[in-house]
Formats: sequence, structure tokens, C-alpha cells
Amino acid sequence: MTTQWFTHDIRVRYAETDQMGVVYHANYLNWFEWGRTEMVRELGLSYRELEERDVLLPVIRAEVDFVKPARYDDVVRIYTLIEELTKVRIMFRYEVRRLEPTEELLVTGRTEHVWVNRNFRPIRLERQAPDAYRLLEGIKEE
Amino acid sequence: MTTQWFTHDIRVRYAETDQMGVVYHANYLNWFEWGRTEMVRELGLSYRELEERDVLLPVIRAEVDFVKPARYDDVVRIYTLIEELTKVRIMFRYEVRRLEPTEELLVTGRTEHVWVNRNFRPIRLERQAPDAYRLLEGIKEE
Amino acid sequence: MTTQWFTHDIRVRYAETDQMGVVYHANYLNWFEWGRTEMVRELGLSYRELEERDVLLPVIRAEVDFVKPARYDDVVRIYTLIEELTKVRIMFRYEVRRLEPTEELLVTGRTEHVWVNRNFRPIRLERQAPDAYRLLEGIKEE
Amino acid sequence: MTTQWFTHDIRVRYAETDQMGVVYHANYLNWFEWGRTEMVRELGLSYRELEERDVLLPVIRAEVDFVKPARYDDVVRIYTLIEELTKVRIMFRYEVRRLEPTEELLVTGRTEHVWVNRNFRPIRLERQAPDAYRLLEGIKEE
Repeated sequence: MTTQWFTHDIRVRYAETDQMGVVYHANYLNWFEWGRTEMVRELGLSYRELEERDVLLPVIRAEVDFVKPARYDDVVRIYTLIEELTKVRIMFRYEVRRLEPTEELLVTGRTEHVWVNRNFRPIRLERQAPDAYRLLEGIKEE
Repeated sequence: MTTQWFTHDIRVRYAETDQMGVVYHANYLNWFEWGRTEMVRELGLSYRELEERDVLLPVIRAEVDFVKPARYDDVVRIYTLIEELTKVRIMFRYEVRRLEPTEELLVTGRTEHVWVNRNFRPIRLERQAPDAYRLLEGIKEE
Repeated sequence: MTTQWFTHDIRVRYAETDQMGVVYHANYLNWFEWGRTEMVRELGLSYRELEERDVLLPVIRAEVDFVKPARYDDVVRIYTLIEELTKVRIMFRYEVRRLEPTEELLVTGRTEHVWVNRNFRPIRLERQAPDAYRLLEGIKEE
Repeated sequence: MTTQWFTHDIRVRYAETDQMGVVYHANYLNWFEWGRTEMVRELGLSYRELEERDVLLPVIRAEVDFVKPARYDDVVRIYTLIEELTKVRIMFRYEVRRLEPTEELLVTGRTEHVWVNRNFRPIRLERQAPDAYRLLEGIKEE
């Protein structure tokens, strides 16, 4: 398994804050989604195209540890890693860090996904989209 | 045209607040949606069933005037009215009031919609769902 | 520790769906928040008032297992339980079920929280708000 | 009044879609906020710092015309313009276009804002933050 992290930077938006003056906790799950989407894009895979080929990747489990709050207008770096890839599921790991001044750790997390078709029936990625499977395998093997 | 208002009460959720300590302004558009959905439900129409019959009702214009901010945990009353109904479009009007202590006015607004099918082609409601059209017409004629 | 579940029913809103035709997964964290807020309200505690007394309850860890997707306009029942209460933290457990036709299980989860003040410094609930602590203790002891 | 548009590009996220398969309409108000925030940043103004100096800019009116829907993973360009600036209020105008293949117009809109302090009392920007006022005036005069 590789330890190679992919990164994607975003800026915290006003709508993401709550009256505690920090980012509302559910938004980190959105950020994880952006992290893994941009990661597979960098690999040459468009999640949008996968869906058009009837390959969906719903979340079946999520874990989040909230260490420090992100704040409005912060630039945060989303780190994403493929932790496990099997023929039927994939697991990502994440870290979110505030870029300035010291890449302070804000949140860590994991999401677990299964490959399904439009009707939420499990599929085998290597059969439905072998090219995609090989790309992800490549990362894993690195 | 009737002046009959339908009402639906909701409680402000934490996720809807922002760091100003009030409800983030875009959420009022969601509340308008809840107002008109519950209004048509009270009329005996399920918007979900309409969609299943290939009748969709996207918003083509929205206007919102923000008078006073709603706050976390407030109970607010959403008033909804059909302002105009034609064979191809429908316009709703809204008022949002804080229930306690005095039904203070918070927001007013309007949304305009067209009837379309799943492919976003305009349809005539009276042909596609004559029962629904008659129900809405009834309200209008009152 | 009690096994008494508190319940709160909500209806799935259009904005909560995504293009998979189901509820976007991050929304369940919002629902958990509604579950625990209404639970403590039923106990006679207002989370809003707690915040006004400088008692905040941020989430420090969340886990969610997604079993089946909730869909637009479903009425879902949020079950909430206090799993653990100590002087410095509290842990809730949740189940989300689709009410009709058979209370089918959709999602389970847990959130862990610490009591802090406005500056995110840990506090002891029994000192800062002994009345609240006793109410929660009562539940725990039942 | 200048006709100079500032632009900011974003990618449509999964959470922003709804079960119609397009972006849920309320999200365009968020995008407008990102447009004006990045516009004033380009002018050398940080909205975050303005808030820290007790200058808030709540929306008092919004209008949106929905022409065509944005879709998941689209790159959209948010155009922002200062339409009017007075000592007590500011009005922005927006256009949202899908970047590929032809900058197709998706949405147009307007938001109107007043300068207030933390307690939502109106303030005069030129007194509270004369530097910011001059910068915005400069744009207007161009």
C-alpha cells in the first residue's frame, strides 16, 4: 500500500460557518468528497464519467476526528490517500490542515465505499470499468 | 385570486446559522421550498408523486427581501400563497415570521416556476396531470 | 446506563437529496444534531440557553454507518441515546429509520462531544451548569 | 459606473446537486457570495478583516433568474460587478456561465447589502473603514 497523499486546497466559505464562529462539522464530509474527487481526477479518472458509465460510489461508512476548528476564509489543504482497494470496495483516508502559518492538523477521517450501479446493486469495478480499476490498482501497488 | 395563506412551522437548526450568529441568507430559499411543498400536500398533492409522473417544477426566478434575521432555535412560521397560476407556470409568494413573541416579519419573497418533464422540456400541467391542475385552479378561484 | 431512546421525526427535504436520487450522506450528521437537540429539549434543557450560559458542545468525533439510503419526502425517525456521560464529555448514539412501511433501518451512528466555553477551553459541566449535569445524569442513571 | 466584471471559477460539487440531476437553486446565492468575496479580495480587501473591524455586510435583498441548470463537475465562471455604491449600501450584479464549451449563461442575479456593525446597527463605511470605502469608490469611478 502506498503512503502517497494527494492534496487539494480550498478556501472556507461563509455558508460553511455556524454561530460558534467555526466550520459546521458536517461540512468536513463534503471536503472529503472534494479531496477524493480531485485525487481520482489527477489519476486521470472523472467521477462524473464513471457515473455516466453506471458506476456509482456511495459512502457506506464514515469516521471523522475533529482536532481543531477551521475558520472562515482559512485556506485548508485536504490530504487524501487510498487506504484499501478490493474488487468490491475502496477506503480513503483524509487529513485536513490549515495552510497558514504551519499546516496545523484540523481533522482526520476515513470513508468506506462500495461500487454499485444506478439501482444500488453491488458491481465489480474490474468488470464494469477495468481501465478505472487498473488506474486505482496502480496507485495501490506503488 | 385568493389571499388564503397556508402556514408551516419549522425550528431553526444549528447548521443553518453562520458566524454572524443568524441564519445564512440562502437558507430562506430552502424554507420557501418547504412552504410550497407542505402547501400542496395540504391540498392533497404530493410533489414527490408529481415527479414520479414526470412533472417537475424548477424555479426560474426568485426574489427575497431580508427584513430581520432569524436565529438559532427560533420557531418560524412560513406563509405560502399561490400568487399566479397559468397553464405553463406558477408563482408563489412567501412570508417568514418568528412565532414568538409577536409573529415579527423576518423575510418576504416570491418564486416563479415552470412545469417541465424530466428532460427540462416545458409541459402543460392540465394535460400531464389534469387532477393536479384542477386542485391548484380551485385554490386560485376561491 | 439506560437503553431509553428518544425519537424525533422529520421529513426529507429536496435540498438534502443529490443526483443519486437519495439523501447526500453528510446530511445525516445534521439529523443527528436535530436528534440530540430535541432529546435534551424533552429533558427540559435548551441547547440554545446552554450556549447563552457559555456552555458549548462541539463534536470531537463522529462515526456513521450507511445501511440504506433515505429518499426525498420520506418521513424518517431519528432515535437518540446517551451512551456515555462523564464530567467532561458526552457520547450519543443514533439510529435513523424510515417510518413507512416498516421502520427500516437506514443509518446508525455515534458522536462524541466535549463541554467547552466560547473560547473552546474545556469546562466541567457540573460546575458551569450543575442543573444541566443533574438532568443528564438522571437519564444516565435510569 | 464601471462595467468591469471580476471573475472567479469554481467546480460544481456533488453536494450541490439534487435529485433533478442539477444544482439545487439555493446554491447560486452561495456562489454569488464567493463571487463578491473574491472580487473584493482582488481589490485588496479581505471581507474577513472587515468583519474583525466590526464591519458586516448582510444581504437585504436578492434576485435570481435561473436560465439553464449547472450540473455536477461543471466548471462555472462567476462574474461579479458593483452596480451601485452609496455611503450606506452596496449592490452587486452577477452572471454565472458554464465555462465549456461556450460560456453559456446559466444564471443572473443581484444582491443588495447594507453596512452594519456586529449588533446589526447601520454604519457608514467611509467613517468605519475609509480605506475600504475609497477602494470600492475607485472601482465605481473607473
